[in-house]
Amino acid sequence: MRKAIILLSGGLDSAVTLFYVKTRGFDVTCLTFDYGQRHRREIQSAKMLAKLAKTKQVILAMTFPLGASSLTNAKTKLPCRQSSVIKKTGIPNTYVPARNIIFLSYALLYAEVIKASSIFIGINSIDYSGYPDCRPEFLKAFTKMAALGTKSGASGKAVKIEAPLMKSSKTDIVKLGKKLNVPFEHTWSCYEGGKHPCGKCDSCMLRADGFKEAGIVDSLKVKGAR
Amino acid sequence: MRKAIILLSGGLDSAVTLFYVKTRGFDVTCLTFDYGQRHRREIQSAKMLAKLAKTKQVILAMTFPLGASSLTNAKTKLPCRQSSVIKKTGIPNTYVPARNIIFLSYALLYAEVIKASSIFIGINSIDYSGYPDCRPEFLKAFTKMAALGTKSGASGKAVKIEAPLMKSSKTDIVKLGKKLNVPFEHTWSCYEGGKHPCGKCDSCMLRADGFKEAGIVDSLKVKGAR
Repeated sequence: MRKAIILLSGGLDSAVTLFYVKTRGFDVTCLTFDYGQRHRREIQSAKMLAKLAKTKQVILAMTFPLGASSLTNAKTKLPCRQSSVIKKTGIPNTYVPARNIIFLSYALLYAEVIKASSIFIGINSIDYSGYPDCRPEFLKAFTKMAALGTKSGASGKAVKIEAPLMKSSKTDIVKLGKKLNVPFEHTWSCYEGGKHPCGKCDSCMLRADGFKEAGIVDSLKVKGAR
Repeated sequence: MRKAIILLSGGLDSAVTLFYVKTRGFDVTCLTFDYGQRHRREIQSAKMLAKLAKTKQVILAMTFPLGASSLTNAKTKLPCRQSSVIKKTGIPNTYVPARNIIFLSYALLYAEVIKASSIFIGINSIDYSGYPDCRPEFLKAFTKMAALGTKSGASGKAVKIEAPLMKSSKTDIVKLGKKLNVPFEHTWSCYEGGKHPCGKCDSCMLRADGFKEAGIVDSLKVKGAR
């Protein structure tokens, strides 16, 4: 049975990726990162998702330096979609430097250790927050670098790095998740912590738009919703 | 003053890189990794080198999975230069999957956080152990990937990644170190732990050859030497 590593944050996109990869018959190991994110709540979702999907899971703790991002510093204001921060640079202050680069690098390490043939990541470049490490050209460059910098690549058996949702809109992702019976109530998109999603941050709004356009009711309720 | 991040293992190459970069007038932060290496002794050398070079230093602890490499598993036999392991694949079992990829990724994170313009790494592709992540083509691909996957790169201010020793032989490195007054006795190359270098592992032998050909006496004495 072919082995795969999946980067599982606990968010909507990685959850749909997980259930999609399961249909392709891989022996799956989920890799989840505890990097001091203010929405550490998502790790609980990731644990539940791995359990429900009956996969192995490794949770890796790491220290990101203070001030790296509003996502790792609870004192920084989070942007909403209309924020001037985003308008000015195109990249919101929720950007975490080198995050996907570090996560994919660890996935490479684990893939070589357990001899996995593929790594899956739930990034997409249509309805996303403007992060440079979610673009197809980044993934292409990472794949090339990984093939040159690893033993598996040097031996002609480079680990394949796949982003099956890369060209999907949030609406498409919601629809695919519905089809695959993804337990949406056990995913977490909100950048804030807390018991219920805030419904106001950029990530909550992207998610809400996706469900609305797909005509599907989100089983995860935002704060104050009935 | 321009800022630089240096990957400092505590070995000969990274020590020479550190003292070389100091001559170029950078405000230097050393990044040192504690990844469960059997020769954790090198971290003590890295601390001393950063102190002597009067630079800042961040030591990052991380967990590499058991069985990743003979370098992270003290029960595995280390190869000597004539080992059949190396002859067969060209890559010895001291290869640590994705090591430089992970280290450079963290360097990128820190570079973006402290706004460093350059990252320096002591790899070289002449007298080395055959690791794929020490080759120029790997570094070129990493640099391209890093420019595409980071905010600094997307803003046209990509972090420069430099390997000033890439084309140097071990002899050249020893000669340069001597010229720069690198305190060789506070560097550590041996793959084994212990108080004195074993003098027998691949890394000890590469170092010994370098000093011999340079006609310079190594101030770090191997086990049993007077």
